[in-house]
Amino acid sequence: MPTEDNIWTAGLIVIGDEILSGRTQDANTAYLAKWLNVEGIALAGVEIVPDDMDRIVGAVNRARDAYDYVFTTGGIGPTHDDITVDAVARALDRRVVIHPEAERTLRSYYGNDITEARLRMARVPEGAELMPNPVSGAPGIRIDGRLFLMAGVPKITQGMLAGLQGQLEGGQPVVDRTVGAWTGETAVADVLVAVEREKPGIQIGSYPFWREGKVGSNFVIRGRDQAAVDDAADRLMTALREGGTEPVDGAI
Amino acid sequence: MPTEDNIWTAGLIVIGDEILSGRTQDANTAYLAKWLNVEGIALAGVEIVPDDMDRIVGAVNRARDAYDYVFTTGGIGPTHDDITVDAVARALDRRVVIHPEAERTLRSYYGNDITEARLRMARVPEGAELMPNPVSGAPGIRIDGRLFLMAGVPKITQGMLAGLQGQLEGGQPVVDRTVGAWTGETAVADVLVAVEREKPGIQIGSYPFWREGKVGSNFVIRGRDQAAVDDAADRLMTALREGGTEPVDGAI
Repeated sequence: MPTEDNIWTAGLIVIGDEILSGRTQDANTAYLAKWLNVEGIALAGVEIVPDDMDRIVGAVNRARDAYDYVFTTGGIGPTHDDITVDAVARALDRRVVIHPEAERTLRSYYGNDITEARLRMARVPEGAELMPNPVSGAPGIRIDGRLFLMAGVPKITQGMLAGLQGQLEGGQPVVDRTVGAWTGETAVADVLVAVEREKPGIQIGSYPFWREGKVGSNFVIRGRDQAAVDDAADRLMTALREGGTEPVDGAI
Repeated sequence: MPTEDNIWTAGLIVIGDEILSGRTQDANTAYLAKWLNVEGIALAGVEIVPDDMDRIVGAVNRARDAYDYVFTTGGIGPTHDDITVDAVARALDRRVVIHPEAERTLRSYYGNDITEARLRMARVPEGAELMPNPVSGAPGIRIDGRLFLMAGVPKITQGMLAGLQGQLEGGQPVVDRTVGAWTGETAVADVLVAVEREKPGIQIGSYPFWREGKVGSNFVIRGRDQAAVDDAADRLMTALREGGTEPVDGAI
């Protein structure tokens, strides 16, 4: 399943009109990305789609074809616009069934306040397992060990991910190192190209900023081999020194 | 170009490894969404892709087919991983050329510090116009009046959008109204369905929260017709009252 260089990939589908209207700032992409890094999995693409059946089905099928793992956030609540379960079931060509354990959990969580709407949250695509939700009653959904339907509320999403920690097959975790310097990124553009070319598997991102009236940049070196990352960092620091700028080992 | 109900749509492509690695939290999606609302254009989809030629080309072509307008953020800086111009040129099957006005702007901005890397920022797909950049030297790029290549740094993106204000053809701006209530969204799920069904063009989002040990929800009613939005808000407030909860006109 992973690419030739043993990099496992994941895609995220963020589902919800509230993100596309600008009402809610998505926070799950950045959190999931960092969580995946630790598991040795690269977040390789994100789609943000509205609460629309065809759009969700399309995004799920594209992501299943493209990545080892697929995560979704949003649309698994109790209301009329929560259609993620139905859309994923349609994408997988499966029926939607009630998961008995989910129903028990919801009934015990809500007690006498259980309603038909709340029981909708026990619906899953046939054959699915549950992802425990340590924050509120409604569980996440896990399908075939590679498709994960999670809540949209970040605190709940993060709780569901915590329960999944260490359970996914991945490659080497990503390591990174940051080199900072009081110079613009353009000043060392050539060096960045050269180092990336010489070091396969190493990526360098440059992040210029303006602060206290001065131009600076942080250079983030990322890879899966610590020695190669350190080597690239050394080369970059040497080049910065030769250019007349004293680098900092770490972000400025 | 707009859909039958006179809704103009836009797609956004967020370009950059730094977003997918979790290092940087994307802020441009929410800002662009709100900016578009005012212009009468709906942000209808977002893709986040890495600094990868094929991935950017694919996303640009999908978005051109799907939406009236296409925006990109990121990848128009001076360094080796800034390949948005090349990718968009390839998607459009155009040459990359130097835009003389962009070159003049860059030369005057950088003065004696002009370098080959910095001059890369004058490269545009053939036939493109410039989007003024009030923050730093490098302009954004506007193609055929419907494709907009903007910077990734939010302050610069926002400056480029400010220069575009009022220039895009759109439909009716979106108006919204929020009704809050100290009840869960599940309590009024049926009412939400009924109101949406009776009022075409009206969408209601429900946003539950837990605060001070209590469950509450804000309901956001959105549409392009103020009277219809107000009407839907009234119906929802009546239903909440009938259910024994006094609603608030506005967010809690």
